[in-house]
Amino acid sequence: MKKYQKEDLVSYALGAFPSIELIKNHPEEVVIVYQSTHYDHAETLAKLCQTNKVPLETNDKIIEKLSDKDNVFVIAVFRKSTHSLSNGNHVVLVNPENMGNFGTIVRTVAGFGLKDIAVILPAIDVFDPKVIRASMGSFFHVNIQTFSSFEAYRKQFPTHLCYPMMTQSAVYLDTYRFPIGPSALIFGPEGNGLTADFATRGQSLKIRQDSAVDSFNLPIAVAVTVYEFMKQNR
Amino acid sequence: MKKYQKEDLVSYALGAFPSIELIKNHPEEVVIVYQSTHYDHAETLAKLCQTNKVPLETNDKIIEKLSDKDNVFVIAVFRKSTHSLSNGNHVVLVNPENMGNFGTIVRTVAGFGLKDIAVILPAIDVFDPKVIRASMGSFFHVNIQTFSSFEAYRKQFPTHLCYPMMTQSAVYLDTYRFPIGPSALIFGPEGNGLTADFATRGQSLKIRQDSAVDSFNLPIAVAVTVYEFMKQNR
Repeated sequence: MKKYQKEDLVSYALGAFPSIELIKNHPEEVVIVYQSTHYDHAETLAKLCQTNKVPLETNDKIIEKLSDKDNVFVIAVFRKSTHSLSNGNHVVLVNPENMGNFGTIVRTVAGFGLKDIAVILPAIDVFDPKVIRASMGSFFHVNIQTFSSFEAYRKQFPTHLCYPMMTQSAVYLDTYRFPIGPSALIFGPEGNGLTADFATRGQSLKIRQDSAVDSFNLPIAVAVTVYEFMKQNR
Repeated sequence: MKKYQKEDLVSYALGAFPSIELIKNHPEEVVIVYQSTHYDHAETLAKLCQTNKVPLETNDKIIEKLSDKDNVFVIAVFRKSTHSLSNGNHVVLVNPENMGNFGTIVRTVAGFGLKDIAVILPAIDVFDPKVIRASMGSFFHVNIQTFSSFEAYRKQFPTHLCYPMMTQSAVYLDTYRFPIGPSALIFGPEGNGLTADFATRGQSLKIRQDSAVDSFNLPIAVAVTVYEFMKQNR
């Protein structure tokens, strides 16, 4: 066992909370669960692992080796598996650059009850333990599929209604009425947002904001957009 | 000149972007501006400082000493001054615990055009350079006033309509119609949210969310609430 690297076939859920979410949601992907001798809820964890036929081992050395923080008492090792998107509504992240932001977005999107996130490459490694941690375990509640390009995404989902979120758009999110139908809410990278050509790929929208202030950060923009969209789609 | 400490009467805007926002918005609070010999826009900065009667000094040693990152080329030293809240709408943060979150909240609230943030103590130091940086300069666009307790806040603003945001509330934000009148959107600390007694202090509201997922993080909760509120108040 060694610290996570992008090339690895497995990744780690660091901490009891994300590990338990993983075991509950995708027990078939768990290779092994390690717990520290200092873990307070060993009995509950043992029962959960047994019910889900997941091997459990007490091993302080491995916990120490794999975790980068002191307060990690449980680590679940899991096979990195793609969960293909459903035909429902999607959040599409084009070239996301920051793992913490991506984890926060996963948590937020899952919180609003949207289940499918497309990631257009190049992007951060969606399986990095930092992502799993920032998602607070929500990572295991959603489907995350990567695509080599936006065109590759469109090829698989050609009829989704596309909404590129762009500060240059002429249409405000808070006055727009979303028509009924599977939709893709599309967001650009942290630094520069979507390139201008995305304006032709659907109905571009912008969030109303004070022009004197720098634009919203990416997790905030995604949160507000998904909130408005889901509000109209209840 | 030394690294910032909470007891200091001055704080620092680290970086050209927040420094320029500070000089433009509150020149009377600027003690001095330092620039690095490597700063690319020295002429523009000199003009801005001259127009606003702010002293400017080129000093690499001080820049290096005060900044904790490599890419800081401008630092503005400013007197810590309270900007009392207006009688308009407020965001009230009870005991915020995280400087990065607080800076993000300032940026987001300012982006939505809301100008007044009350902070109920104990809380993070609102003047810490980490807050200024995370706010991306928006810190200088809003009024931030601290209060020793929520009661002290209410004493100064007794008629504001209060909306404690609580996951235990029975009323959803996305179906609530805000009545007209100066309002206070109230949020608890990151860890535990508002204490139960806040339910009696106004109309509590909650954000609709998937119960299987951990609650939204504080900046996300503030963003969505302020978005909905401002949408209804245009």
